[in-house]
Amino acid sequence: MKSKVPIEKKVLGKNDEIAAGIRRRLQKEKIVALNLVSSPGSGKTSLLERTLGALNHTLNLALVAGDVQTENDAQRLIRAGGAKVRAIVTGGACHLDANMVARALEDFDLGGVDILFIENVGNLVCPSSFDLGEDMKVVVMSTTEGDDKPLKYPAMYRRSSVLVINKTDLLGQSDFDVDRAKKNALSINGALTIFEVSCRTGAGLEAWYTWLTALAARKKGGS
Amino acid sequence: MKSKVPIEKKVLGKNDEIAAGIRRRLQKEKIVALNLVSSPGSGKTSLLERTLGALNHTLNLALVAGDVQTENDAQRLIRAGGAKVRAIVTGGACHLDANMVARALEDFDLGGVDILFIENVGNLVCPSSFDLGEDMKVVVMSTTEGDDKPLKYPAMYRRSSVLVINKTDLLGQSDFDVDRAKKNALSINGALTIFEVSCRTGAGLEAWYTWLTALAARKKGGS
Repeated sequence: MKSKVPIEKKVLGKNDEIAAGIRRRLQKEKIVALNLVSSPGSGKTSLLERTLGALNHTLNLALVAGDVQTENDAQRLIRAGGAKVRAIVTGGACHLDANMVARALEDFDLGGVDILFIENVGNLVCPSSFDLGEDMKVVVMSTTEGDDKPLKYPAMYRRSSVLVINKTDLLGQSDFDVDRAKKNALSINGALTIFEVSCRTGAGLEAWYTWLTALAARKKGGS
Repeated sequence: MKSKVPIEKKVLGKNDEIAAGIRRRLQKEKIVALNLVSSPGSGKTSLLERTLGALNHTLNLALVAGDVQTENDAQRLIRAGGAKVRAIVTGGACHLDANMVARALEDFDLGGVDILFIENVGNLVCPSSFDLGEDMKVVVMSTTEGDDKPLKYPAMYRRSSVLVINKTDLLGQSDFDVDRAKKNALSINGALTIFEVSCRTGAGLEAWYTWLTALAARKKGGS
């Protein structure tokens, strides 16, 4: 596989250029951009559904939802209402890249938007390498997937700024130890902001909403 | 990303050559080889721990366990006992390739082995493209990751011969509908053999053990 390295570097260079363009546009419009990453099924879409339901009267939200196949996530988010939603079907690719996002945003009216959520493909490896022009990556972990995941997929945890531990309603039904999960995550990246939530019961989500609202206000304030 | 395609084809061509070599060796020694694939945290390692515990008195089992970082899985499987275990740390790569497996098998004494399990990196996308010389891919899905996953990651389900639905003890605690999951999986690949198990309680595992035992017997019988 060594022969791939120079090409990948070239591809990433081009990706970073396009990502920088996205970042400039979002910065100019004072839009917070969050790139949501996780394994398949950890609950990124559920977290976004909840967030739209809670914040769409106070914030102007936009979403780009990526999937390898189907527009299921985008459809769920459109049904959740209150946000502008675009789907990206990668058609086999294991991650979003900046070019896909740039194309999705091309004729997307972002006027007045406070937060743009980019829901990445469910994959704990490849999306970690691709800058999409976001302010930060938010990694979602579910309590059913094992508390050792930060150690096994360190790049993703290293490159994320926020960790949302979802499905806390299922704690106690597996060997998952939330303190060990946090300790493992912080051993990889001590700067992580951590939320513990259940998108099923709603527990813990207020802190996430408060954090998002403050983030949007700070951006609009220009800092 | 178009510039990557020819290189990827070349890499896959080389991969397939190496995989064919592995397949010839395993075929000659009449060893069943199963490539276990899934999202992170669906329970591949737990399934293997259970399987070793149940079958290591009647079958000769060997394992190659791949991870992006850590040898945690291999260590867990060594503790489970009764099998020859090799770890592969991919060091960032999002999948196992045939070359990694060939290197792990190089000085691995496979004499008398009935079944070789290859535990792939937790990733529902990239490992689907890499032949490792296996007889078949076994995709593990957990009941906490959403019943629409076969539709969203069709390549993996199309290229697998067996689906193990794990964590059935958690059914009813989420919106996961096991019949819908099976229907979705079969709509992608009507030839899938499906097992429903709980590696936590042991429910449903007898059918899996029986199937493995018959598979090994058939291989040793030469058919």
